[in-house]
Amino acid sequence: MKTLTFAIAALLAATPALALDGKWTPEQVLEIDPAWLKEQGLELPPSALWDAARGTGLLVGTVNLAGCSGAFVSATGLIVTNHHCLFPLLQEHSTPARDLIRDGFLARKLSEELSGTTIRVDIPRRFTDVSERVLASVPADADPLQRLAAIDVRQKELVAECQKQPDTKCKVAVYDEGLKYTLIESTELRDVRLVYAPPRAIGEYGGEIDNWMWPRHTGDFAIARAWAAADGKPADRSADNRPYQPEFYFPIARDSLAVGDFVMLLGYPGITWRALIAEEMKERRERFFVRREDVFGEWIAHLEQASAGDAAGEIAVAANVKGINNRYKNAQGQIAGLDRGRIVARQMAADDAVAAFAAEHDEHADALTARRTLRQLLAERERSWERDFLLNLIPMGIESVPGGIPPLPKSLYFGATLAHHAREQAKADTERAAGFTSAELPQLRDRMRREQQNYFPAADRRVFAALVRRALALPKDQRIAAVDAHFGQIDSNDLDAAIARMYAATPLLDADAREQMLAEDLPSLQARKDPLLDFAIDWDEDLRALRQRERDWASRSAIARPIWRRAVQAHAGKPIAPDANSTLRVSFAHVQGYAPRDGVQYTPFTTLAGLLEKHTGAEPFALPEALRTAAREPGTHWIEPALGDVPVNFLADGDSSGGNSGSPVVNGKGELVGINFDRVWENVAGDFGFNPALSRNISVDVRYLLWLLQRVERADELLQELGVEAEPEAPKP
Amino acid sequence: MKTLTFAIAALLAATPALALDGKWTPEQVLEIDPAWLKEQGLELPPSALWDAARGTGLLVGTVNLAGCSGAFVSATGLIVTNHHCLFPLLQEHSTPARDLIRDGFLARKLSEELSGTTIRVDIPRRFTDVSERVLASVPADADPLQRLAAIDVRQKELVAECQKQPDTKCKVAVYDEGLKYTLIESTELRDVRLVYAPPRAIGEYGGEIDNWMWPRHTGDFAIARAWAAADGKPADRSADNRPYQPEFYFPIARDSLAVGDFVMLLGYPGITWRALIAEEMKERRERFFVRREDVFGEWIAHLEQASAGDAAGEIAVAANVKGINNRYKNAQGQIAGLDRGRIVARQMAADDAVAAFAAEHDEHADALTARRTLRQLLAERERSWERDFLLNLIPMGIESVPGGIPPLPKSLYFGATLAHHAREQAKADTERAAGFTSAELPQLRDRMRREQQNYFPAADRRVFAALVRRALALPKDQRIAAVDAHFGQIDSNDLDAAIARMYAATPLLDADAREQMLAEDLPSLQARKDPLLDFAIDWDEDLRALRQRERDWASRSAIARPIWRRAVQAHAGKPIAPDANSTLRVSFAHVQGYAPRDGVQYTPFTTLAGLLEKHTGAEPFALPEALRTAAREPGTHWIEPALGDVPVNFLADGDSSGGNSGSPVVNGKGELVGINFDRVWENVAGDFGFNPALSRNISVDVRYLLWLLQRVERADELLQELGVEAEPEAPKP
Repeated sequence: MKTLTFAIAALLAATPALALDGKWTPEQVLEIDPAWLKEQGLELPPSALWDAARGTGLLVGTVNLAGCSGAFVSATGLIVTNHHCLFPLLQEHSTPARDLIRDGFLARKLSEELSGTTIRVDIPRRFTDVSERVLASVPADADPLQRLAAIDVRQKELVAECQKQPDTKCKVAVYDEGLKYTLIESTELRDVRLVYAPPRAIGEYGGEIDNWMWPRHTGDFAIARAWAAADGKPADRSADNRPYQPEFYFPIARDSLAVGDFVMLLGYPGITWRALIAEEMKERRERFFVRREDVFGEWIAHLEQASAGDAAGEIAVAANVKGINNRYKNAQGQIAGLDRGRIVARQMAADDAVAAFAAEHDEHADALTARRTLRQLLAERERSWERDFLLNLIPMGIESVPGGIPPLPKSLYFGATLAHHAREQAKADTERAAGFTSAELPQLRDRMRREQQNYFPAADRRVFAALVRRALALPKDQRIAAVDAHFGQIDSNDLDAAIARMYAATPLLDADAREQMLAEDLPSLQARKDPLLDFAIDWDEDLRALRQRERDWASRSAIARPIWRRAVQAHAGKPIAPDANSTLRVSFAHVQGYAPRDGVQYTPFTTLAGLLEKHTGAEPFALPEALRTAAREPGTHWIEPALGDVPVNFLADGDSSGGNSGSPVVNGKGELVGINFDRVWENVAGDFGFNPALSRNISVDVRYLLWLLQRVERADELLQELGVEAEPEAPKP
Repeated sequence: MKTLTFAIAALLAATPALALDGKWTPEQVLEIDPAWLKEQGLELPPSALWDAARGTGLLVGTVNLAGCSGAFVSATGLIVTNHHCLFPLLQEHSTPARDLIRDGFLARKLSEELSGTTIRVDIPRRFTDVSERVLASVPADADPLQRLAAIDVRQKELVAECQKQPDTKCKVAVYDEGLKYTLIESTELRDVRLVYAPPRAIGEYGGEIDNWMWPRHTGDFAIARAWAAADGKPADRSADNRPYQPEFYFPIARDSLAVGDFVMLLGYPGITWRALIAEEMKERRERFFVRREDVFGEWIAHLEQASAGDAAGEIAVAANVKGINNRYKNAQGQIAGLDRGRIVARQMAADDAVAAFAAEHDEHADALTARRTLRQLLAERERSWERDFLLNLIPMGIESVPGGIPPLPKSLYFGATLAHHAREQAKADTERAAGFTSAELPQLRDRMRREQQNYFPAADRRVFAALVRRALALPKDQRIAAVDAHFGQIDSNDLDAAIARMYAATPLLDADAREQMLAEDLPSLQARKDPLLDFAIDWDEDLRALRQRERDWASRSAIARPIWRRAVQAHAGKPIAPDANSTLRVSFAHVQGYAPRDGVQYTPFTTLAGLLEKHTGAEPFALPEALRTAAREPGTHWIEPALGDVPVNFLADGDSSGGNSGSPVVNGKGELVGINFDRVWENVAGDFGFNPALSRNISVDVRYLLWLLQRVERADELLQELGVEAEPEAPKP
């Protein structure tokens, strides 16, 4: 056995490094050494991925779809994405009598496809560098705040001008806080119809329990179709529409996919923070995520304890507990990942190397000043850090706290939102803060009403008291004036009783009364003399002061960060992928497992056998009988010979983030091999830095989709359209 | 990468089967093909392990120690075993001021060693087949019950005769319910002293959380020394004693140990049930473990819910919840393992093959009758199965329910034990049931008092009510008379109130009152007219009837089982290891990991790096600072080159069961490489059948012990005695 062991070890040691840090922009693909890409496994010429002259290429087979990614997979407008990305379409068409969420849906012909009102598809058409035009807008003598204002105005002008083109949606994407501005023109298709969705029991198999985890067996896929007018142009839903014919799409792969194979992950990843300097990452590690874990852990305990044994209470808090728990686990994952990857220390070493380089190159001397500025800004922020963290826990209106934590305590959220709304109403509509314009009022009203269903008085009061206690414990130079004014004089033993009285007296917690208050101006709200509302009005004032300071910090950071990043780039002497910003990106990767901890190796494929093994019959592990029967039938074409079974999910070292839900995963020939839907818990700190040992994204293997369509759904017509005509012969093991 | 993958797959496919089913008796080692053993990795001649002529060999370097296994590792009587096996010694010497359990202990010279009163060491000296002598005791016309009684008497005679030899402990071991009887003579050493134990934080690292789990990082080892009189004979503790010089011991291995290496697991494994026929295994799978999971799950919920929020209540039920939870998890593991290994179906196929063989061989024709008898006995047992299961939930006195579940509800346990005791007291002392003799009275008194600390009225009443409800729901032909008589007439809505009244009125739940009642005879107990006690007195009567039926079943099974097993052996045509029965056994194994589920591979070694990674500072993951500091120091000799770190625990496919705690794991040269301390959860069903894919035992790597003694404890004298003189040079990677 010694011989065998050493032989394996020797083979593994000879394996080349398989990872490449970065979510590359389309233009950057052409800056990467083509020979290296070929060596990694790219069989297509890079120019097929992106044609610089035309500003398009195979990459735009990847579409942006309701905050998710998706992929054209046929010349007839079929789009594959995640099940959870098409959820709104399923919801729109579900009734108690015909529950598509529970049962899934399959259109057996074009006329059966279900059109929706909520989902649109964006196909990028042109990327134009507008950095010079944006920055030319800044007056010579502008201070940082004036500079940022001028930049904002110029961006809006560019978008407005661009959108004069028919059927065009435009945005200016900002890279690295202003190092580059790109105008992105897209074609927006408005008629998107549901073609196929599996039952929830398949699409959400494993549910919250398996969320972020490996091994995974989730069928998180669904198929839609984009429709257009007869001339191929975007159109509202119409009987005259025809399936849209995309210029680029990813055919379904017919080859095997196995450990070590090259794949590309395409999509629209959300925000990442790799351009932070080490000190800023340290602030995230040592303050932000630590305090989040602390506060959210406390809140979860309050919600659970206050509702324990009360059936209605448990239902009321369930969604909020789930939401907070998600961020709580995320905070723990970020801390663990930052530590395990030694990301702060590595970043510090990298920063120091850039600084040394800048010190030796006159043209980058300003980078040293920029680094000092970023450190200085951080030091300023840290002086009121604990106060600002607490203020930022309460979102306003339809705003969502970063990371989507639910608004709690509801009382303060409702009151402060009403105050904020009243103050914004006093301005001209165009001057109002985002979320508080006239056009957004229905959305605001709806949100305020919806939050009522998650309100459970006993739990809310406990979270409220916990927040007040934290604020009262803040250091002297970081006080929240509103809290001091309203609670500073109350003996700590009387606090819970005082809060209970405030809750009992306020109309804020009655949905109808609250809705009517949306019509009131600030003096009317103040005239109510409602202690809870008064506190919320003052809280809003503290928050507005914070927003101004944040704007000031942002305006100075927007000068320093690009200067620093320019030096980082020059020092690297090779392309560096900018932080993700919801624009089209590609990551080059390989199928591989990882070691989540000592003594454990995760292997990169799961199988039908494992899917069945997890089945308990109880949600979220309750497979439909039809699938279980089909899985016991003899071998199909979709067996991977190396596994002896149909692959269900697989791991790769793709560099992904939030918006990569539904991202196509394609092989070196540009064929679809999988649909990305998650990343592993050990990789959440990938937002701050790429760790080749732990950066793993989770995809559905397309062969699971094909097997399901063939053996369970018997969707022969759809398969034919996907290029899978009849049941092909099973591959030889 | 394809090439690499396939190369590895090809190598793995070429690996020979590494497992060998069975816990072999010493004599059986000589029946196994020596060439095969050599091929597996045994470098010693089998005759070194066991010398048939002398009835001893290297195997007896393995000693029996307080229900655990242990190993001599020096010519000076040093014994290595598990930390938890020497726990009584630590307890005996611990005081609040000098907490050896918390801090650990190291004797730096002989005079510092701590002698105890509780732990003795048995060294087997001779194994004699007494089957003929035992069976010759059975009168020709004996019915099964008379036959079993005669066998019992003859066994006691043999032991009494044997123990006339000085310093000798004897027992008759029964194999396969009577296929073979072996008289085992042992030398019992009475002076055993503590030499080294790590702090609990190392010895129990991972605690209940890691129990049964991989990956594991527990330092579950400790060192004792056996002492004897100057002439080498067993002696009570005396200043004249000298370190005992064993004839056989296992030197510490100096070679590397890596994946695939051959090891032997020696020790005294407890009870297993592989000799059951398929139908009997099915009864375990479909009735016994299912009902245990059901009842224990219900009890855990009752205990937790009734004590939630009550600090004293939570403390009172904690130990019982832990104990029941352990068996609850075990039941789930047994079910999962029996299913996953398809053990019942495989056993059925195996049984059928034996039956077919017996049908063709006249000398085994009686095996077919025997199989029918075993099935018939099972059918009889199943007719009152649900009733008997409930009756067997309540242990009597110091008896422990199989699997060691704590006695619940306490009220019934206390009452039925008093009734049982009173009835046994009416007999002559020699006639009394085990646990109820005069000599055992102090133990009984102590146990009855100790259980009081786990009594929490609200929880106990709920468990009581649950038991009564289950009994009242039994089918008509399986009633428990006691329950019908005392609860049959109570409306189910009034049951809780009726039970509360019984609890309020009884003296049973007062420790002092209860202790005094131990002196009362049955009429006195009855004269009390205590409803709860009256119920318990009747319960004891039902239980006594069950014990008689069980004795009847056992007497018939004791005839049929050996006949059947003889056919099984003849059919196999090769040695078959008998079920474990706490006698000396050896298992041949190899170091290897396993796949606990789809997508996960457990690798067979854990390391110091993983040990540190688990450290959180909170129990059970709070390592001593000294260890953490030492672990950061540069490389030591004890690094395994293939890992680049010091190994902590490792997996092998050793065939183990309960009594293997502290078992030496030795290499092909007979040198100590590890100390067994657990098996994995996926392997608990190994009690019913060996599954090469999942049969894994967990051992401490001896290099972790050596590293700890050298780098943390600086125990140079002890290391020298173990043959490790100075810090050897670090091995070349």
